[in-house]
This record gives sequence, C-alpha cells and structure tokens, in this order.
Amino acid sequence: MKLESLKELFVHELQDLYSAENQIIKALPKMADKASSPELKSALQEHLQETKGQLRRLDQIFDQIQDVDRDDEKCKGIEGIIKEGSDMLGEDADADVLDAGIIAAAQRVEHYEIAAYGTVRTYANLLGKQNWAELLQQTLSEEKAADQKLNALAEHINMEAQAA
Amino acid sequence: MKLESLKELFVHELQDLYSAENQIIKALPKMADKASSPELKSALQEHLQETKGQLRRLDQIFDQIQDVDRDDEKCKGIEGIIKEGSDMLGEDADADVLDAGIIAAAQRVEHYEIAAYGTVRTYANLLGKQNWAELLQQTLSEEKAADQKLNALAEHINMEAQAA
Repeated sequence: MKLESLKELFVHELQDLYSAENQIIKALPKMADKASSPELKSALQEHLQETKGQLRRLDQIFDQIQDVDRDDEKCKGIEGIIKEGSDMLGEDADADVLDAGIIAAAQRVEHYEIAAYGTVRTYANLLGKQNWAELLQQTLSEEKAADQKLNALAEHINMEAQAA
Repeated sequence: MKLESLKELFVHELQDLYSAENQIIKALPKMADKASSPELKSALQEHLQETKGQLRRLDQIFDQIQDVDRDDEKCKGIEGIIKEGSDMLGEDADADVLDAGIIAAAQRVEHYEIAAYGTVRTYANLLGKQNWAELLQQTLSEEKAADQKLNALAEHINMEAQAA
C-alpha cells in the first residue's frame, strides 16, 4: 500500500470495498437462511441482488484504472463484522431473538458501507471523476435505504423478540 | 452466549460495545499521534475523553444488571476496523494523505458505534428501561456529532491531500 496521493488512498479504499462486497455476497445467503421472519428473509435476499449490482459498479470503476489489482486487499473491518454475526448464527436462540440479532448485525454491515462509500464518493469528486462519484453515490443511497428498511423491519421483529 | 430473550441479546450487544469502547480507548492515542493536522489531532484527543465517558455510561448500566461479566466479549467488528486503520498508520505516506486516511478509518469506527448504540437504545426502550435508553441515546448523539465533526475536518484535509 502506497499512500502518497489522494488517488492512491482512493484506490486503497476502493479495493477495501471490493473485498467487503465479495465477503457480504457470501454472508447474506447464510443470514437469510437463518432468518425466520419471511419479510426479513426476503429483505436479505433482495439486498444480495442489490449487492451484486454494487460490485459491478466497482468493476466499472476499476476497468478505468490502469495497473491496479482489484483483489489486492482483504477488508478486515467487514471480516470482523461478519465473523461477529456468524458467531451469533451458531447460537442456541429463540427464533424472534435471532431475527433481531440478524438485523443488528446487518445494520453494522450497512453502516460500515455508509462510512466507506461516503469517503470514496467524496474522493472521486475531488479527483474530478464525476462519473465515478455518481456510481458511488448510487450505492451509498442504496445502503442508506437498506439501513432504513432494516429499521422498519426491526420495529415489528424487536417486539416479537421482547415477547419471546 | 444465550439468546433466548431480548434481554439476553441486549446484554450480549452491551458486552460487545464495552469491548469496542475499550479497544477504541487504546487506538485513539495512536491515531492522534500519527495525525499531522493540529485540528485532527485535537479532535481525536477530545474524542478520547468523550469515549471514556461513554465507557462510564456502560458501567452505570452494567452495575444494575446481576450476574453478568461486562468483560465477557471481544468485539470482533471494531477489532477488524481498528486493525485496518493501524495497518495504514504503518505505511509510508504523505502527511495530508495519511490524515485523510485517518479520518476515513475514524468514520468507520463512528458508524459501527452509531449502528450498535442505535440498536441497544431501542432494546432498552422495549425492555422498559428508560434510564438506560437515555444514557445510550446520549452516547449515540455524541457519536453522530463526532462523525459530523470529522466530515467538517475532511473538507479541508481532503483538499490538502488532493494537492499532495
């Protein structure tokens, strides 16, 4: 990792997100599989499709950058967040409580991405790459909407968990 | 970890945050030490003091919960996020670019906490523990304000990094 210019930091952050999205694509089906609420299950499955689109947007940007290996980083932040969530999936749990816990884990994932996409979107603008900034803003908006959707689902699911 | 009630999930999430805050208290001085911008350095040092207060709020809640070891969890999410940040601190970097990278890392920390404190604040309300919910809301508001402050600092620092 060389960090002698904003462009190099941008590439580093983009590689971090590329790894994050790939890890999330592997994790979401396991979370959906363990979810009991049909609404939560389908929200996670829909977000999986959305995440694949987000990875394609990163591919579009990497296609325009020379001499960079998009697979060069392992995102340790998302790795830790996913590990934390998967530890919980293995627990002996009440179904509604586990659903509440899955939402809590998914919102940590969303917030990691909200922070990271906000950063790279801002860098892209400063680098004069408006088309990249627009692609990254689309993903950022999707992540914020996904977080809001999880908030809405939590209202009902947390109450079920409280009644468990 | 037993997850048979919302109360048990709440305790698990609170232990996760207790570990997170302790890890952040160790990491912030290293980040402040590597920061070149005096404004960034002092923002990180101020946030260290704020974080110590946030840990005391968690202690106040744990003091009211019987038979729970507050040190029983290791927060893997924050561990990964901090590891990612500390990898960057060891790089050969331009001072302004490194400052921009430190802000990016700190905002990932803030967003992890925004997600996690939002969750436990909501659970505390559902559990009928309004005094706990108020303590957790105070911390949540501080984390959101810290994220906004980093956004404001980034405006200037990212431009310096772009000129590097």
